[in-house]
Amino acid sequence: MNEFALIDLIQSTCALHRPDVRIGIGDDAAAIDVPEGHELLICTDTLVAGRHFPINSRAEDIGWKSLAVNLSDLAAMGGTPAFALLALCLPDPDEAWVRAFARGFSELASRHNVALIGGDTTRGPLTITVTALGFAPRGMALRRGGAKVGDVIVVTGALGAAAAGLHYLGLRPECGRAYRLDPNRFDHQCVSALDRPVPQIAQGIALRDYASSAIDISDGLAADLGHVLRLSDTGADIELGLLPGWQALCEVLAVEQATRLVLSGGDDYVLLATVPPNRLQAAELAVKSTGAVLCAIGHVSAEPGLRIRDLQGNLIHIEKAGWDHFA
Amino acid sequence: MNEFALIDLIQSTCALHRPDVRIGIGDDAAAIDVPEGHELLICTDTLVAGRHFPINSRAEDIGWKSLAVNLSDLAAMGGTPAFALLALCLPDPDEAWVRAFARGFSELASRHNVALIGGDTTRGPLTITVTALGFAPRGMALRRGGAKVGDVIVVTGALGAAAAGLHYLGLRPECGRAYRLDPNRFDHQCVSALDRPVPQIAQGIALRDYASSAIDISDGLAADLGHVLRLSDTGADIELGLLPGWQALCEVLAVEQATRLVLSGGDDYVLLATVPPNRLQAAELAVKSTGAVLCAIGHVSAEPGLRIRDLQGNLIHIEKAGWDHFA
Repeated sequence: MNEFALIDLIQSTCALHRPDVRIGIGDDAAAIDVPEGHELLICTDTLVAGRHFPINSRAEDIGWKSLAVNLSDLAAMGGTPAFALLALCLPDPDEAWVRAFARGFSELASRHNVALIGGDTTRGPLTITVTALGFAPRGMALRRGGAKVGDVIVVTGALGAAAAGLHYLGLRPECGRAYRLDPNRFDHQCVSALDRPVPQIAQGIALRDYASSAIDISDGLAADLGHVLRLSDTGADIELGLLPGWQALCEVLAVEQATRLVLSGGDDYVLLATVPPNRLQAAELAVKSTGAVLCAIGHVSAEPGLRIRDLQGNLIHIEKAGWDHFA
Repeated sequence: MNEFALIDLIQSTCALHRPDVRIGIGDDAAAIDVPEGHELLICTDTLVAGRHFPINSRAEDIGWKSLAVNLSDLAAMGGTPAFALLALCLPDPDEAWVRAFARGFSELASRHNVALIGGDTTRGPLTITVTALGFAPRGMALRRGGAKVGDVIVVTGALGAAAAGLHYLGLRPECGRAYRLDPNRFDHQCVSALDRPVPQIAQGIALRDYASSAIDISDGLAADLGHVLRLSDTGADIELGLLPGWQALCEVLAVEQATRLVLSGGDDYVLLATVPPNRLQAAELAVKSTGAVLCAIGHVSAEPGLRIRDLQGNLIHIEKAGWDHFA
């Protein structure tokens, strides 16, 4: 399979028509239209084999996840996804692998009407870099900086599940291949959260009119909330018992481990936002209309730093706030 | 040096203000404005260490080249560059290396007023993926398909120099470190062409009003002209003696080797375009005003296939048309 057959295979698997694509795959660059009154949002994220996904992950899941982590960044801006580019660095041109990868990528892309408009294929260590583009009404994109003292801190879904999935894979690697067999099993659900994160696009759009700031949780709650607080020049108080997902993890893992996973496990890809109290009810309704539940977990404080309290009101010490690829 | 110090270093080295950047580095995604009446051009290319540049290349040159190969794609569309994203995968966070890399990247970016608006840093095998964005007046972007029978085939600069540079590095690896010492030496010029390709932005814009098709030569003349012919459903006749750079290479290398380098060496990053004969003179003047020379090398023919004739008029057999990363 040569480079051009490989490109053809990806292109045909991911074919999707959008009228705003003026020039798609197959030229030196793609050309797109941006609707009037909108700004273009753009982000890029790389997945490295063995670092961002287990080395024996299914190609389909890798394809899905490589797009999902990027759409999650657009979601955090309140953006509507539209286009993607795929830079695929492959050790060898295995047709079955590429076909499965493209299928997983396309499965998520078609859900959000995302057209693959370009990319690059090279030979080398398995790494996947996706660039995602989307739109937001001009001036309406959600920022990380913008949290105000008194704002309620909310998340759009459960925390710690993906990190628990990684834990279960360490205990039983075969779980990664088999988890689709029994989707009711908790460990299978956790591995699914790791392999197939669902970008919170509709939730980001719903929050756009109400939130003062937003971020997607990829490095762990503590680390990502930390970015918001630093850029907003504020602090925060969080209650562990309010974190969605924590109770469920406590039933199957030691409390200490469950706590570590929800606070700093990472790979959650739910949104964290801050909402002024007088807009909270409207934000909850807007998010509810997307089928999700907005969970209040604490509030923004004037006192710098992040304080997390357990059920007894004691402060929890966070050893490792989240992922730092070079620490 | 942790991940965030590394991002700060890149950001501060590449700082450049553009009023159309609404949200730059440091949020989940960047947000930009696209000027009215224009379409957005976007492309992405990955450089893998040891494959797209010699493993001992200077970090500055790698930084320059990673942006240059992408701007060259925008140039081939007749685009004006505006923004870039940088996904950097590094084996270890060597501050001096990152500083030099960012300096080389920034040196080229500032020449073309390109703002670095986002990216990603990960740990892994050294690979660099840049996404470049630019603008063209709506409907005016140059395409690969569009060559018509009778059109003159032109290039905007010398061929084979970068491939000769790779040849010289194989003979004398120290040349790669020393070539700046004597820029008049031919071998040093060739290594410079390999390490510091100059994207033909002004030439692409100059050709926009006259060319029927265009492409940048990255995989070698034969391969890239082949793309134009395939998409345009035409053939071509080329004269070896007209190829800029061939004579100079023949003076220092065997004719057979010189011929191979100009036809299929690759890494040239000059533009190839097809121009209707009645527009040729105007195109030549427009390109001349950019400081470059437009060289006619042959013409588009009805007969399918690419024929290249030597000084005696004999057909040349091309063994390897260009780079296929998976062949």
